[in-house]
Amino acid sequence: MALNHQIREGDNPLITEEREKATFSTEALADELYGPTFAKRRRELSAAVLKMPELLDPYPHVFMDRPTKVANSMRKTVAVMEGASEIADITNRDEMGHLVCEAFGDDGFPLSIHFVMFLPAIQGQADDEQAEEWVHKAIQLQFIGTYAQTELGHGTNLRALETTATYDKNTQEFVLNTPTVSAYKWWPGNLGKTANVVVANAQLYIDGKNYGPHNFFVRIRDEETHQPMPGITVGDIGPKFGLNTNDNGFLKFDHVRIPRRSMLMRHSKVSPEGTYSPPVHPKLSYGAMIFVRATMIRMLAHSLLKASTIAIRYSCIRKQGEITRGAGEVKILDYQTQQHRLFTAMARGFAYWLVGQEIKQIYERIAEDVKQGNVDQLADLHALLSGMKSVVSFDAGKGIEQCRMACGGHGYSHASGLPEIYAVEVAGCTYEGENMVMLQQQARYLVKGVQKLAKGEELTSMLKYLGNNSNRRFRFAEAGSKIEDTLIQAMEYIARTTIQRVSARLDSLKESGLSDEDAWNENAVELTRASRTHTRLWIAVCFKDRVNRIQDPKIRAALQDILHLHLCYEVIDMSQYLLEGGYATGAQIAQVKDVLYKLLAKIRPNAVSYVDAYEVSDTELRSVLGRRDGNVYDNLLKWAQSNPLNNVEVLPAVEKHLMPMMKSAKSKL
Amino acid sequence: MALNHQIREGDNPLITEEREKATFSTEALADELYGPTFAKRRRELSAAVLKMPELLDPYPHVFMDRPTKVANSMRKTVAVMEGASEIADITNRDEMGHLVCEAFGDDGFPLSIHFVMFLPAIQGQADDEQAEEWVHKAIQLQFIGTYAQTELGHGTNLRALETTATYDKNTQEFVLNTPTVSAYKWWPGNLGKTANVVVANAQLYIDGKNYGPHNFFVRIRDEETHQPMPGITVGDIGPKFGLNTNDNGFLKFDHVRIPRRSMLMRHSKVSPEGTYSPPVHPKLSYGAMIFVRATMIRMLAHSLLKASTIAIRYSCIRKQGEITRGAGEVKILDYQTQQHRLFTAMARGFAYWLVGQEIKQIYERIAEDVKQGNVDQLADLHALLSGMKSVVSFDAGKGIEQCRMACGGHGYSHASGLPEIYAVEVAGCTYEGENMVMLQQQARYLVKGVQKLAKGEELTSMLKYLGNNSNRRFRFAEAGSKIEDTLIQAMEYIARTTIQRVSARLDSLKESGLSDEDAWNENAVELTRASRTHTRLWIAVCFKDRVNRIQDPKIRAALQDILHLHLCYEVIDMSQYLLEGGYATGAQIAQVKDVLYKLLAKIRPNAVSYVDAYEVSDTELRSVLGRRDGNVYDNLLKWAQSNPLNNVEVLPAVEKHLMPMMKSAKSKL
Repeated sequence: MALNHQIREGDNPLITEEREKATFSTEALADELYGPTFAKRRRELSAAVLKMPELLDPYPHVFMDRPTKVANSMRKTVAVMEGASEIADITNRDEMGHLVCEAFGDDGFPLSIHFVMFLPAIQGQADDEQAEEWVHKAIQLQFIGTYAQTELGHGTNLRALETTATYDKNTQEFVLNTPTVSAYKWWPGNLGKTANVVVANAQLYIDGKNYGPHNFFVRIRDEETHQPMPGITVGDIGPKFGLNTNDNGFLKFDHVRIPRRSMLMRHSKVSPEGTYSPPVHPKLSYGAMIFVRATMIRMLAHSLLKASTIAIRYSCIRKQGEITRGAGEVKILDYQTQQHRLFTAMARGFAYWLVGQEIKQIYERIAEDVKQGNVDQLADLHALLSGMKSVVSFDAGKGIEQCRMACGGHGYSHASGLPEIYAVEVAGCTYEGENMVMLQQQARYLVKGVQKLAKGEELTSMLKYLGNNSNRRFRFAEAGSKIEDTLIQAMEYIARTTIQRVSARLDSLKESGLSDEDAWNENAVELTRASRTHTRLWIAVCFKDRVNRIQDPKIRAALQDILHLHLCYEVIDMSQYLLEGGYATGAQIAQVKDVLYKLLAKIRPNAVSYVDAYEVSDTELRSVLGRRDGNVYDNLLKWAQSNPLNNVEVLPAVEKHLMPMMKSAKSKL
Repeated sequence: MALNHQIREGDNPLITEEREKATFSTEALADELYGPTFAKRRRELSAAVLKMPELLDPYPHVFMDRPTKVANSMRKTVAVMEGASEIADITNRDEMGHLVCEAFGDDGFPLSIHFVMFLPAIQGQADDEQAEEWVHKAIQLQFIGTYAQTELGHGTNLRALETTATYDKNTQEFVLNTPTVSAYKWWPGNLGKTANVVVANAQLYIDGKNYGPHNFFVRIRDEETHQPMPGITVGDIGPKFGLNTNDNGFLKFDHVRIPRRSMLMRHSKVSPEGTYSPPVHPKLSYGAMIFVRATMIRMLAHSLLKASTIAIRYSCIRKQGEITRGAGEVKILDYQTQQHRLFTAMARGFAYWLVGQEIKQIYERIAEDVKQGNVDQLADLHALLSGMKSVVSFDAGKGIEQCRMACGGHGYSHASGLPEIYAVEVAGCTYEGENMVMLQQQARYLVKGVQKLAKGEELTSMLKYLGNNSNRRFRFAEAGSKIEDTLIQAMEYIARTTIQRVSARLDSLKESGLSDEDAWNENAVELTRASRTHTRLWIAVCFKDRVNRIQDPKIRAALQDILHLHLCYEVIDMSQYLLEGGYATGAQIAQVKDVLYKLLAKIRPNAVSYVDAYEVSDTELRSVLGRRDGNVYDNLLKWAQSNPLNNVEVLPAVEKHLMPMMKSAKSKL
């Protein structure tokens, strides 16, 4: 009996022969990746969705123009919300998440901002009376909300937001206003055409004094007619690289009056007389950012593993070129270059996925602490997630593009699904904090760690390694079985020395007379690099611990191969830092490369089984190249033939423009 | 008088103040980049196009669905062909190229395959009588042709193509046939709906014997009706990442009979009796590939410089965050991280652009030699262009994405123009030979060089440096003014040692008993790396020579800053190879970084002037962020407001789906 559970009759034999080689149970690996209970529920939900045509697209959504895409997604939104209660536990975030993946794929769920940002904002920032008024209605979808913060001219720097909320004591109202074009709210998801209420961020003014940005609950479209409310200008910001189903919007307030109690008042308050009370714990606002970024890590990992699934499966169908002349064309996955592109991408995918789950648990633990007034670890987690969001979004994007290019020409077609996976995933480099800014945010925390160390202060456990001053050099040659410890020690060396070096460079520039801020900017590139090395180390450590906790020896062994590949790849990718300080020699780096190439060959027979175990359904994958059954070419032809450009044999524009042009050329002869 | 010629009244003062800082004449730099005569002609043509509304899009093409895009481009095609003769020298490839850039931007010109591949194929491979019959008609556009080689299941490996052309002696015809689904012709540009003739590549069979792939001239659509000819199935392959104006097509032959004289017979021939005569010089077929790849280098460079133009201009309009607290928000171009992303991308852009022009000249020189029967340098150039096509397409793609991300959220909008520049440019990693295959093609040539060296044979000038066995180490500290020689010597060291090392590893694997082919595959990743280091070296040398030949001292100095930045960046990017062999120390790499950071600061005041000198018109740029006048925000708002999703205030799907959903939620209360 084959260990891979995805073998079916009628499959392409080229992919069945791959599955028959599995040395581990793909179901057991799926249980490990999702937890056994949820792995089972995922399969049940995927099967149920197949029987609900109202959740599916009537034809490939990449054939639709934008208005059709948006309309289709609104239709499916209602279908999902109605159908979910029959097949899923609608209070279970994971189950609902999977259902949304099946129904919407990369295209995005029109209510995701409502549930992931708007609802948490009112839950976390409204006081009890306000929550009583709004939260239940939001959960029931009596209105659809979004979170309006970013402006046309202002992003990450909240202090510069221009929208104002001026308190009018006489009427006990706030007057919301958009004073300039650059103050238009810009980008909020589903603001353009969908949402009818928003939580809007605006500078609070009382008696001419600015109290900084605060959040306000505002109805922007009429409950009955959906027309914009008086003083409101709202619309869609136009097509984008990806996420075109989403009506990201703009919003202008023209002296819009809202009641005093529209300000979200759990933390800050304004009394009827106009007295302002500030929040007790300014750091509490980290909570929402941390939650969103922790969710992002898993989403980004998911995108990378979907891309790996498509490219690895297709690379066993596609044959091209001969390795041994006359021996016939080989599967492109037999080329070392292809294995190197795809297996390292897959390894990062598994690393990010499992680390993302660990972070989810850490977040839940810390959120409990915070409820009990303990905010100690919030700063640690906030810094780590700034770095991790940046590293994972960028490196996952690179991996997805490698998967796409590894599929050759067909990877470039929307039939592969890969262009859209990339375009959607890579937005993660920009939203929720631009990566360069985020990396520097974490760098501040790292530099502070070095300063604490210099003063002899205790470091938190995450930074303990900065104090390790062992002079030990790389011992790869002698390493034996504990390759992972050797490689992680090397990554500790890399992170420690890059952080120490940039801290020293900062100090020396300050001593030479530069202001703190100018010295920082002169080191900004090196600071982002140091930040990346720390994040990669943390991911590696967390991934290693997670893999080594696995009980089932075959599954542990299977993921250890992936772990070792990941560690070799990261160390080679950062080898200049090992060589710079003399920690390792060129010959030792060559040994790490040899181990990596051997791992590629070792992983090769199980490659399809690894991605099969991640269990992305064909419904969600939306990829002709990545189909479970491997029947690619016939389906590519069907897909192409059904595209709208083939609706007529001779396009009207050919008759109108090209045929007369050719005719006239002939008559000129 | 300001040295930047792009200052106009009404411009955003934020960009004018940048232009006023120019330390060189932007017009003089443009003359250097394009040659003075053509620089002038480009400006005249751009001005003329502005007065020809029929060449422009009636509204942003990113708002169009695919059928509208295709129709719009067919309309413009006729307008360009008709209008060109009034304003341009239609026999001048550069002038026509510029006109096409203005009218079509990244979207692609529907006749480009006709002119760049189909026409050269019949010019080069048809015999005199055939050329007499076809070439004039093709130039006059009596028909529109494309070049059909790639099949659904077969790409780079021509020997595996499945389409057959079987000679029937009785009727003196070839029978073209598509025996399987994987044999469908797939991907040829403008095959789907536009072209009515093709040059099709098929395996030639005579009396049951296969003579390999040959080219045939075939009419696929009726001259009068444009309906597919009997036995022909043809259509569009569907939407793609980019290039969606192009109706890349599929094509099936069902025993289609064509006359014997439809085979292109300049090099190979089939007599009426079925006797086959092979070509004299098999390498002659390199010519077309070399021509296309040489053209690609300039196109890819152009994309990178367009992206740099957009991102650098916008980075002087966008203000965000403070460097010194309380001093006000700064232009984002003042951040070192932003400079590092953008200036290194721009530097590679200028390097590729100028090197691309050098290659054009080398190609023209070698083409002359070939005409005189001298094919000696053809292999050198062919190898170099395989590597260069790969390195430039990939590194330019990375640079464009950095430009896009550096523009934050607005970079992700199609208003920036950047997503499309990337999606179109990055196709270059795949078409005309997949990059991993191309890099290995060059690697074969490099490894042969090492073998020749071992045998004491003479190396061609391009490979001479492989024989340099100086033990000299990096002398950066003592370098003084000749920084460029020091850095290029370092790059020579890198290329030489990576090639030598992989050659040695190949030999040792063969000695250990692996076949040549398996040993090659076990080294494939390292071979691609060696190939890249050689290409980067060659680009650097060529760029340096080009810059140092410049007469005008101010322009030479301006481009020397870019050259030095480029060299520092490449050396740092490959520093592990310098450190591995002990050529340089970590402290020396840190010195190179210091020089690079100083160059960023030095280039900063001229940044806008550098890209202004490249002179991409607003018409071609199609970017709200990159507008010459810097009036970004007002125009972003106008662009967004005019997008089709805002045609109605309340979308029908909101009325049909979302409003009833919210209403029913309320009634449940």
